[in-house]
Amino acid sequence: MGLVQTKVQPLFIGVDGGGSKCRATIYSVDGNVLGTGVAGRANPLHGLAQTFESIEESTRLALLDAGMKESDSRLLVAGLGLAGVNVPRLYQDVVNWQHPFAAMYVTTDLHTACIGAHRGADGAVIITGTGSCGYSHVDDTSLSIGGYGFALGDKGSGAWLGLKAAEHVLLALDGFAVSTSLTDMLLNYFNVTDALGIVENLAGKSSSCYAALARNVLDCANDGDAVAIAIVQEGADYISEMARKLFSLNPVRFSMIGGLAEPLQAWLSADVVAKISETLAPPEFGAMYFAQQEFNKSLSV
Amino acid sequence: MGLVQTKVQPLFIGVDGGGSKCRATIYSVDGNVLGTGVAGRANPLHGLAQTFESIEESTRLALLDAGMKESDSRLLVAGLGLAGVNVPRLYQDVVNWQHPFAAMYVTTDLHTACIGAHRGADGAVIITGTGSCGYSHVDDTSLSIGGYGFALGDKGSGAWLGLKAAEHVLLALDGFAVSTSLTDMLLNYFNVTDALGIVENLAGKSSSCYAALARNVLDCANDGDAVAIAIVQEGADYISEMARKLFSLNPVRFSMIGGLAEPLQAWLSADVVAKISETLAPPEFGAMYFAQQEFNKSLSV
Repeated sequence: MGLVQTKVQPLFIGVDGGGSKCRATIYSVDGNVLGTGVAGRANPLHGLAQTFESIEESTRLALLDAGMKESDSRLLVAGLGLAGVNVPRLYQDVVNWQHPFAAMYVTTDLHTACIGAHRGADGAVIITGTGSCGYSHVDDTSLSIGGYGFALGDKGSGAWLGLKAAEHVLLALDGFAVSTSLTDMLLNYFNVTDALGIVENLAGKSSSCYAALARNVLDCANDGDAVAIAIVQEGADYISEMARKLFSLNPVRFSMIGGLAEPLQAWLSADVVAKISETLAPPEFGAMYFAQQEFNKSLSV
Repeated sequence: MGLVQTKVQPLFIGVDGGGSKCRATIYSVDGNVLGTGVAGRANPLHGLAQTFESIEESTRLALLDAGMKESDSRLLVAGLGLAGVNVPRLYQDVVNWQHPFAAMYVTTDLHTACIGAHRGADGAVIITGTGSCGYSHVDDTSLSIGGYGFALGDKGSGAWLGLKAAEHVLLALDGFAVSTSLTDMLLNYFNVTDALGIVENLAGKSSSCYAALARNVLDCANDGDAVAIAIVQEGADYISEMARKLFSLNPVRFSMIGGLAEPLQAWLSADVVAKISETLAPPEFGAMYFAQQEFNKSLSV
């Protein structure tokens, strides 16, 4: 099979699976990017078949991008960073997959994002995009906080900001709370005139539909809307507290990742902002690095 | 067709469609129950095909229960009380249905519940079950409050109580809030030991899965758990305020309907509780009554 038959030095592929897309990057042994492919969502929590399909498709595209053949996936040692695999059942489902790689190593998307952010060094990350979660890895100790998904958790995330804003506006339109510019923003956003119009646009929709409102909620807050300020500040306070919990492991570096990382900064506590370092590499790098470490361990056994 | 060809005095059927089941009752012109049938969910918001299927099935069972033939649906003047038909698009979809009845009249489940509760008289109702909403009808004026669905609205409902409890417990397990007996309750309920276990049982689940937790949250509150008390009181305060808004139309009667109507009473304001009257008839009666009124109007035109 693969490695032995071909007698080729293995290449590594890092795969970052997420709720909206799956990105795969092939690296040489010394960490140079050879090719990249992007496919649809790959979140085991929302369907294994689609996850595997997206991993295969992004791998195929990365191989073509690298000037290789589709069948060359057998030459690749793969690292997969996936949401949901902290649930033992889902981890086992992914590990049991008849994958197309020479070898496959699986961990959480949080873990690979953290490895990437610090280029393999220990550290902590908070991801605030559609969802929110925190992860710290120091020596052999790791700490994972939040990330329980919409609408159960993910406080301070884009979807959470959108949901809290919509909740408040619906209460305001029924006369239970004061209407502010946030109410006008939401009605205008959906081009509707009443609560039912909002409900028609949001009922049963995915977290990304709610997260699409986050920028506007932040704009309202930055413009001084009292309701928006209260929502954004509550979310940001949670993120600040999450950061302090991650700091309890004394990570050398701390990064914030995701679409809300930058706009939320103005609302975080100064002690947290002071500790933010830029991310050094993307999650795919982290996934590749993880695979490399595990692969080398397996050789040295 | 139907009425003219058969020259039979029309019978009426009242259909109460809901998120978990659909109940149909055939009444004689003078309001006696001839037969009843129950089928699966019939909520247009969650699928039209299933809604129509459940209405047909409950009608079929009601016809058999009444000792009639399936084809006798052509003799029935139907009243349908359905969730979601306050959304104009869904109302039109239902009205356009090639239904099996002699005639069909459609209104919201809130409206038919209100007519039923007061046996055709004007009045107000609050429904607190899986969801929550309020409705008041006096003369030609009606007022509808809430009912925007899980997780966007439905404050004070069973699903809302379950969601708020789960949210708090997940925060507590991450160290963001104090753990109380509510935490133990939820862990024991799902027979799990940590936050991930709870998430595995609730992520992506329907509102009824959350509502199933409501009784236990109420038990915790009644046993003095401070967190549960705060959640239940916030929900109950919203329901009390909703009642006062409904009272602004000066309804002669006010009833509370749904699985949480009774257990929530202890948490409502005394001025609201003092106004509660028992329900006089079920929503199917209201749907039938509505159809009868509309049918008579159509004859007198």
